[in-house]
Amino acid sequence: MNFKSLIRDVPNFPKEGVIFKDITLLLQNPSALKQTANALFHLLEGRKIDKVVGMESRGFIFGPILAEKLNAGFVPVRKPGKLPSTTISETYDLEYGTDTLEIHIDGIKKGDRVLIHDDVLATGGTASAACKLIEKLGGVIVQCNFLLELTFLEGNSKISTYPVKSLIKY
Amino acid sequence: MNFKSLIRDVPNFPKEGVIFKDITLLLQNPSALKQTANALFHLLEGRKIDKVVGMESRGFIFGPILAEKLNAGFVPVRKPGKLPSTTISETYDLEYGTDTLEIHIDGIKKGDRVLIHDDVLATGGTASAACKLIEKLGGVIVQCNFLLELTFLEGNSKISTYPVKSLIKY
Repeated sequence: MNFKSLIRDVPNFPKEGVIFKDITLLLQNPSALKQTANALFHLLEGRKIDKVVGMESRGFIFGPILAEKLNAGFVPVRKPGKLPSTTISETYDLEYGTDTLEIHIDGIKKGDRVLIHDDVLATGGTASAACKLIEKLGGVIVQCNFLLELTFLEGNSKISTYPVKSLIKY
Repeated sequence: MNFKSLIRDVPNFPKEGVIFKDITLLLQNPSALKQTANALFHLLEGRKIDKVVGMESRGFIFGPILAEKLNAGFVPVRKPGKLPSTTISETYDLEYGTDTLEIHIDGIKKGDRVLIHDDVLATGGTASAACKLIEKLGGVIVQCNFLLELTFLEGNSKISTYPVKSLIKY
């Protein structure tokens, strides 16, 4: 399947000068949704996974599908104040300012084999922070996988100590 | 499976006096995740669905799994400014103030048979707004389905003209 044909360029979103890669046409196409889920699953090449970690909000879309296919659990990583129980947090730099992610401390057990999933790998800040959260809790990162990778932003370099796979590259 | 045993009560979240029903223990349990997805699927009783509409953020967790199982597409309903292409919006009342939801105008085609999914049916404001968005675009609501229903908040009354099914009731 030509996944790229279902990725829509939206100029000047979310701000002037950015060309946003919109995945909603892919999601709303039944065959593309199924084939994307299967293709993301096959990026694992049969590796055993205990927990899939997905980042708010768009990492929640394929993260749980992957967890179900992998017979794994799903663990959300969220923005501050969204997770109701006890969390640890990780703060990372943005172009201007910082951002923070949280995870429940009981989301990952020591030794859990973890797949980190998000829709887009851009600058890598979010993915790198998620990796740190997992390792703080004793998890082992088996793969970071993404639907889209914007290679010109070199986010891969921030998580280069882990296996990184992306389905679609720009 | 006793789903309720994996729903954690978190007192005073997100504010004093509220007991929050936390679904993360259920999500991180591989068998519970799978069984929940299957049970939500079976609430449809074989009805044909073209699009599953899920509300940001926790409606993104089981919405896409259901879409994949139903051979349907997935269409996100989001908070203002999050969807990149052309949207319509619906504003609804909260206890204090209002909130707004948006959907892409090309997310639903006239005559599409739609399942609306969210994790929790509470006061019904979000679900009711989502139903209005679907109908504005000419979609037909086949079912509104929820993982949890807080029956004492009577959200069901706001969407009583549609078939409503919930997996777990409190």
